[in-house]
Amino acid sequence: MAHKFSELRARMPPQAQARSAAKAQIMLAEMPLNELRQARGLSQKMLADVLHVQQPSIAKMEKRTDMYLSTLRSHIEAMGGQLEVVARFPDGVVKISNFAELGQPAVA
Amino acid sequence: MAHKFSELRARMPPQAQARSAAKAQIMLAEMPLNELRQARGLSQKMLADVLHVQQPSIAKMEKRTDMYLSTLRSHIEAMGGQLEVVARFPDGVVKISNFAELGQPAVA
Repeated sequence: MAHKFSELRARMPPQAQARSAAKAQIMLAEMPLNELRQARGLSQKMLADVLHVQQPSIAKMEKRTDMYLSTLRSHIEAMGGQLEVVARFPDGVVKISNFAELGQPAVA
Repeated sequence: MAHKFSELRARMPPQAQARSAAKAQIMLAEMPLNELRQARGLSQKMLADVLHVQQPSIAKMEKRTDMYLSTLRSHIEAMGGQLEVVARFPDGVVKISNFAELGQPAVA
């Protein structure tokens, strides 16, 4: 997936690539999936192509407030990222490793 | 949930509380859900009580490699923590905010 993402990026016009890189630098905060996609310089159509789904599926997915971890993982990987599941406690932070190697994504 | 967790902790023998606190300090790394539960000084039975489920459900849940985010969130909150969903990119890290306010957990 990451490979395909790089290909998509390479095909973007230079200005768009630069814009996307600048946005990526300021990504420290929290944002919903649709903003993250835009910050990565990707359209719903591009993401749909990578995931072999139709564009409306991406639109629907970005509005969901609950989903399988495997579905979310595929979505994030299609954007060139990696999913991390973290449990935050008052006295520490733990990365949950159960989901490091998920199988095929569940049907959304 | 966090409140109930505090009550459970308060009822633990002092040595167990100290042991649990010491373990919590070294929780920097990655671990599966069952190890996290043990590090928090909780038994499957205690967690089952907080979540109003039977103990075998906790055992089964801890073996799963995929689940709804809402299910995982309830599980982590029952341990006194907060779920964070993070997308890691080569150039930055983003917290996904779609799942900040989930409704009722999906049936596991």
